[in-house]
Amino acid sequence: MNLDSLYSELTLPTKKKLALIVLDGIGDIATKQQGYLTPLEAANTPNLDKLAKDSAQGRMTPVAPGITPGSGPGHLALFGYDPIEVQVGRGVIESLGLGIELKAGDVAARANFCTLDKKGIVTDRRAGRIETEVCEKLCAMLAKKVKKIGDTQVIIKPGKGHRFVVIFRGKGMEGPLTDADPHREGKPIPTVAPVNPKSAKAKKAAKLIADFYKVALPVIKNEQPANGFLMRGIAHQPDIQLFEDRYKLKPACIAVYPMYKGLAQLVGMTKIEGAQTIKEQFETYLNEYDNYDFFFIHYKYPDMYGEDGNFDAKRKAIEEFDEALPILMNKLPDVLVITGDHSTPCKVAGHSWHPQPVMIRSEFSGADKLDRFTETGANLGSLGVFDAKFLMRHMQANAMMFDKYGA
Amino acid sequence: MNLDSLYSELTLPTKKKLALIVLDGIGDIATKQQGYLTPLEAANTPNLDKLAKDSAQGRMTPVAPGITPGSGPGHLALFGYDPIEVQVGRGVIESLGLGIELKAGDVAARANFCTLDKKGIVTDRRAGRIETEVCEKLCAMLAKKVKKIGDTQVIIKPGKGHRFVVIFRGKGMEGPLTDADPHREGKPIPTVAPVNPKSAKAKKAAKLIADFYKVALPVIKNEQPANGFLMRGIAHQPDIQLFEDRYKLKPACIAVYPMYKGLAQLVGMTKIEGAQTIKEQFETYLNEYDNYDFFFIHYKYPDMYGEDGNFDAKRKAIEEFDEALPILMNKLPDVLVITGDHSTPCKVAGHSWHPQPVMIRSEFSGADKLDRFTETGANLGSLGVFDAKFLMRHMQANAMMFDKYGA
Repeated sequence: MNLDSLYSELTLPTKKKLALIVLDGIGDIATKQQGYLTPLEAANTPNLDKLAKDSAQGRMTPVAPGITPGSGPGHLALFGYDPIEVQVGRGVIESLGLGIELKAGDVAARANFCTLDKKGIVTDRRAGRIETEVCEKLCAMLAKKVKKIGDTQVIIKPGKGHRFVVIFRGKGMEGPLTDADPHREGKPIPTVAPVNPKSAKAKKAAKLIADFYKVALPVIKNEQPANGFLMRGIAHQPDIQLFEDRYKLKPACIAVYPMYKGLAQLVGMTKIEGAQTIKEQFETYLNEYDNYDFFFIHYKYPDMYGEDGNFDAKRKAIEEFDEALPILMNKLPDVLVITGDHSTPCKVAGHSWHPQPVMIRSEFSGADKLDRFTETGANLGSLGVFDAKFLMRHMQANAMMFDKYGA
Repeated sequence: MNLDSLYSELTLPTKKKLALIVLDGIGDIATKQQGYLTPLEAANTPNLDKLAKDSAQGRMTPVAPGITPGSGPGHLALFGYDPIEVQVGRGVIESLGLGIELKAGDVAARANFCTLDKKGIVTDRRAGRIETEVCEKLCAMLAKKVKKIGDTQVIIKPGKGHRFVVIFRGKGMEGPLTDADPHREGKPIPTVAPVNPKSAKAKKAAKLIADFYKVALPVIKNEQPANGFLMRGIAHQPDIQLFEDRYKLKPACIAVYPMYKGLAQLVGMTKIEGAQTIKEQFETYLNEYDNYDFFFIHYKYPDMYGEDGNFDAKRKAIEEFDEALPILMNKLPDVLVITGDHSTPCKVAGHSWHPQPVMIRSEFSGADKLDRFTETGANLGSLGVFDAKFLMRHMQANAMMFDKYGA
């Protein structure tokens, strides 16, 4: 029997409340330069310590040993989906990141402006890294001229620098397609093709994108240096089993940044808007406590400062989170998880493969006799090192949502 | 998507240097008799301690829980191949152990002399455990008389006691074949047959071995007690993805014993000959530093003394290794791993299933705040207990050889 079917068969309804709190990129590594402490270890966290005392702890492999996930696979795993089986195209992720609400069947592409010579050869794949304002102007020109290709709506939205996204909203299309990007200078823009040559829907999408190039390229042909564009990661929004169907829990997302709202929306969570700070996010949780079974609360800053390699700022972001915790502690959920979607060590100044620490606190979690929630402490916890995709199952178990298996 | 394909897709080139140092059979267990210390814990290892301080540690399951590997599966897992999927026949392993260079398509058998009665019934499967010199004499007799069967070259090489190997070097043959061994006394030598009855290549190999028996048995029929021979583990050298193709690393093997050179050669490592001691091996590493990306350095003695159940000798072998370490430390690789291929506990006096300790040291490994490299310390490390086949992926990650997965 398939493991997912087994979980599903054993699942019981619950009236308990579950909360998954993601400190983005929380995991870090101890190095000599920082006195062998991680930001989590260096931070003053009296509230987190209090919660840790009655928690089970461990570490999670986000995808597979050695693999560094982007936010997409990192969160899909936290939401309990196999991040290798369920792949979300770059175009979809970028669209979510720009706050675009995708619909079923939308085909999305990550695009960027480039420079072409007279013969159509790519001479600069990033068009000299044009400013965001230039990108916004070019996108507006394109959006004005190209609203539809046949029956298909075309949505163009600028990102940062030379980057933008294009969404094709129509019927009977799917990805993935090969890139309209030679991946190096000195070559023309290749024509896209279905990755699966047997897919009629992908053929339709490929034809549409060829048509899009025909009408869009002339619009910017006299611009300098951005007189062309490349498209990558062209795919449809994947067909993912809804979170509520999968876990029998009504989920809410309390996030600030568009990317995480988008990822939550991808699995069917309800986005609760308005909160801008972690304190406001916890207040939203209190206000909505009765309306949902499951809360996904996302805190961005440990990742942001980790990416900057800024140890002190990451430590302070953790302390700020800790200061807000008493709001949540007014009404703790029955099952509380605090973890990250991956590590973002200051030393790496980027996402990494290092298993992130995780703590689960419930009436039945047991306590691992750890006074704090840290990477080094989590190494000693009862949860060991496990695949992040199983976290949801641990949460369901702690909510007594699984019937006994076998007599 | 298949995990190997994902790793391969994410792999980036590197200019870093990686070294895998295998202390064969290093893992041990603490027992009351030895004051609850393992040889690694009892040893004085100032240099290893220094390296451990800036390392991540953990333990590795060589094959699967409870499974005790031979050197073949143990090393294949360290080299990152699934030791259950990639099986290497006993004949191939024994040939490698005797220092024979196998070629693609060679079919190798592990053989041993036996005693037959007048009717051809096996009366002693080991021919009274004849001396090595007798075995050498008999092999020379066979080799002189049987150089070829048709177009196929026959290579016969003596091992220890009653053991020898036979290599069939020709075209269009493959294994595995069933054994020419009744596995107990009182039965005749069975005729070999293809394990896969549909394989024409295996049929050809089976026919050839039947012909070999026809010409070889008469050569020794008047010898006593070894007037016959059995053949087992008859298979071709498996088609293994080359290490360099798999990891985009140019590998070198610095080993002393033929078996480990052979296993390294099986995956396409270049053997660097000459070094006889661990000091010389480290010196070879220094000399060859610029010529390769990956170094496999094998140290045999912890296993050898573990097999003898000799705690003190195993401890001293570890101390001798530690004394040589400063040579390596003159020019540490960017990613250094120190581990074993399996445990060889003195108490077991043989290989065992106990997960072996492992340490990874790199700029990005992080430090687990452990002052030494020991079994008990490794239990507390951030790597947890993981399958040995993922060690190479950890090493690649530490060398920053993987692109981020997903946006």
